Amino acid sequence: MRSSASRLRSVFATLLASALVLGAAAQGHRAPPLESPVVHPDRTVTFRLRATEALKVELSGQFLPAKLPMQKDEAGLWTITVGPIEPNLYPYNFVVDGVGVADPANPDVFPNERFKASLVDIPGETPSLHAVRSVPRGEVTYRFYDSRALNRTRPYLVYTPPDYRASGAKYPVLYLVSGTTDTEETWFRAGRVNVILDNLIAEGKAVPMIVVMPYGNMLSGMPDPNTPQVAAMYRAFCDELLGEIVPRVEADYRIVTDREHRAIAGFSRGGGQALFTALSHPDKFAWIASYSAFLTPEVCETHFAGFFARPDETNARLRLLWLGVGRSDFLYQQAVAFEGFLTEKKIEHATLVTDGGHTWMNARHYLAETLQRFFKE
Amino acid sequence: MRSSASRLRSVFATLLASALVLGAAAQGHRAPPLESPVVHPDRTVTFRLRATEALKVELSGQFLPAKLPMQKDEAGLWTITVGPIEPNLYPYNFVVDGVGVADPANPDVFPNERFKASLVDIPGETPSLHAVRSVPRGEVTYRFYDSRALNRTRPYLVYTPPDYRASGAKYPVLYLVSGTTDTEETWFRAGRVNVILDNLIAEGKAVPMIVVMPYGNMLSGMPDPNTPQVAAMYRAFCDELLGEIVPRVEADYRIVTDREHRAIAGFSRGGGQALFTALSHPDKFAWIASYSAFLTPEVCETHFAGFFARPDETNARLRLLWLGVGRSDFLYQQAVAFEGFLTEKKIEHATLVTDGGHTWMNARHYLAETLQRFFKE
Repeated sequence: MRSSASRLRSVFATLLASALVLGAAAQGHRAPPLESPVVHPDRTVTFRLRATEALKVELSGQFLPAKLPMQKDEAGLWTITVGPIEPNLYPYNFVVDGVGVADPANPDVFPNERFKASLVDIPGETPSLHAVRSVPRGEVTYRFYDSRALNRTRPYLVYTPPDYRASGAKYPVLYLVSGTTDTEETWFRAGRVNVILDNLIAEGKAVPMIVVMPYGNMLSGMPDPNTPQVAAMYRAFCDELLGEIVPRVEADYRIVTDREHRAIAGFSRGGGQALFTALSHPDKFAWIASYSAFLTPEVCETHFAGFFARPDETNARLRLLWLGVGRSDFLYQQAVAFEGFLTEKKIEHATLVTDGGHTWMNARHYLAETLQRFFKE
Repeated sequence: MRSSASRLRSVFATLLASALVLGAAAQGHRAPPLESPVVHPDRTVTFRLRATEALKVELSGQFLPAKLPMQKDEAGLWTITVGPIEPNLYPYNFVVDGVGVADPANPDVFPNERFKASLVDIPGETPSLHAVRSVPRGEVTYRFYDSRALNRTRPYLVYTPPDYRASGAKYPVLYLVSGTTDTEETWFRAGRVNVILDNLIAEGKAVPMIVVMPYGNMLSGMPDPNTPQVAAMYRAFCDELLGEIVPRVEADYRIVTDREHRAIAGFSRGGGQALFTALSHPDKFAWIASYSAFLTPEVCETHFAGFFARPDETNARLRLLWLGVGRSDFLYQQAVAFEGFLTEKKIEHATLVTDGGHTWMNARHYLAETLQRFFKE
């Protein structure tokens, strides 16, 4: 009995140490769990992966210009220390013999339909806006509905601000859309919209608001946004948002339901969807933001002739039309062309051009900028 | 200009097709996205992974007795078709040159601190309880609080049933704890507690209830549950639950706050935490369930002498003490010993012994069984 109990204890300890989900007792490795990533005080970061059989393991991260090889020790532990890294929250992954994989030791996963990556947060000397602080916290709720157009159950997320439960007040609402291959979770996990907004509200820099995050994938693929064909997908999203999601949100939450208290914003594909939805319905949205996105002049002329035909009227109704893009973004030229089109048509707008590319670091930056303007000016 | 626009279109299409997050434009592969897993009508399943440089790719899944090698084609696409597979929701992953990785094409991820796996749902002829149906849906809310004992922000999830918003009524509450290396999300994602409960409520088989899912990791490691040392961790969890989480939930939700309307259950480590919490506070919990877990007689005698000393009184107050375990579970002998101890001490209880091991398939099975008993008998 003693040896049996002892053996069971050993098996148990082994299972916990190796933390394998799959056929645990039959698997081989018995190494203790390892910590990865480890962010050091000087902002260098150590990444680790146990991979005894792999021939090559590389680190790929948006803080690196190119992949870097990791070094293997005798026990099959691959390690690399890089940096110091500029403070920010970055996606990264390991490339194991050519396959990109999330860091097994890091529970902070980037939600996406098509790849698996992890997130590492490099803190700065002053806390970043996306860093969890000891401030009143809002909530994020997963909701589900049966979509008539898509004939399936669809999810969306709703952020409510810290004082929502106690106040009894009505709030303005932002509809926030993520990009191609992102999911309804990406603004929550990689965008950290709830943390950023909690912090901005605590600092008195943002109006307490509700944020609704739909799932932007309309199951039709992603048409090239440089072509007129993209309009059908944008319109399908617009119909889904206005026909299915907005009525549910307005029925179930304390929301001011006029256009002056309704904003829409999005990143990448979501930026195109936000622009198309808002320009189709100037009666519904007074606040519009496009992060790293654009519409072509052709789509604008075809679908929103009225919006552009009477700029004085349009400008009088618009509270904010905001465009952000990075100089290294692969959509930079198109975003600049869209901005030029707005100028040519005498539509008032604000533009922020930053360093960097088509990244979630920029998406968060643009979000934080616009959260401080929505429902204010 | 034309060639520049054409080049941009090409870059854009490439980016969408390859859907790379990291240094997208600089990366190599330009293959279209692939679908994996594909569940066929005969319940066979095809899994696919693109891995041009890997020497060996295997499929590991809880529907398999052992890993199976996948086959590589000339384009570097690894494929395997297995089954037919018994209907259920299973964790699986790919093992790329020895490294377990989640399926990149599958957004349905198993939340865990220490490994990355994916989930595949094999439907049966009759819809399974964890399958999304067209029934009224509840909501799942992520909440955050500053833990005094742990000195950091901690998350927990709250499920509210479909009629919660409209009814104005008060509800019973289940505290549901997941296992070692699981996170507060695992009962939501891998356990699908919200879907199971939505379906059971629609069928009239479960009482509408609120479910609270704390994060069970007390940051102290996992002491061997066969030893007396585990009690300190269990007690720390119990103090956190009763001191931090229960008061917040009872302040913010419409809950009946007596012991007759409060249940606690858990899987694996969470089962130990649930048992310890409930047996420490028989004044607070009338409904108790342990999924694939146990307490040792020594821990029971040391910490709950009163509970066992007066079985008539204990039995009169207990509404349900439920134990479930699989015959192949590595904790089976200990669970049986705990059941024997309860019998010896004349504590009334219900037991369900099933096939299978220490798996989330069994955890969901036990959850579904007990959800149909809580707050009823």
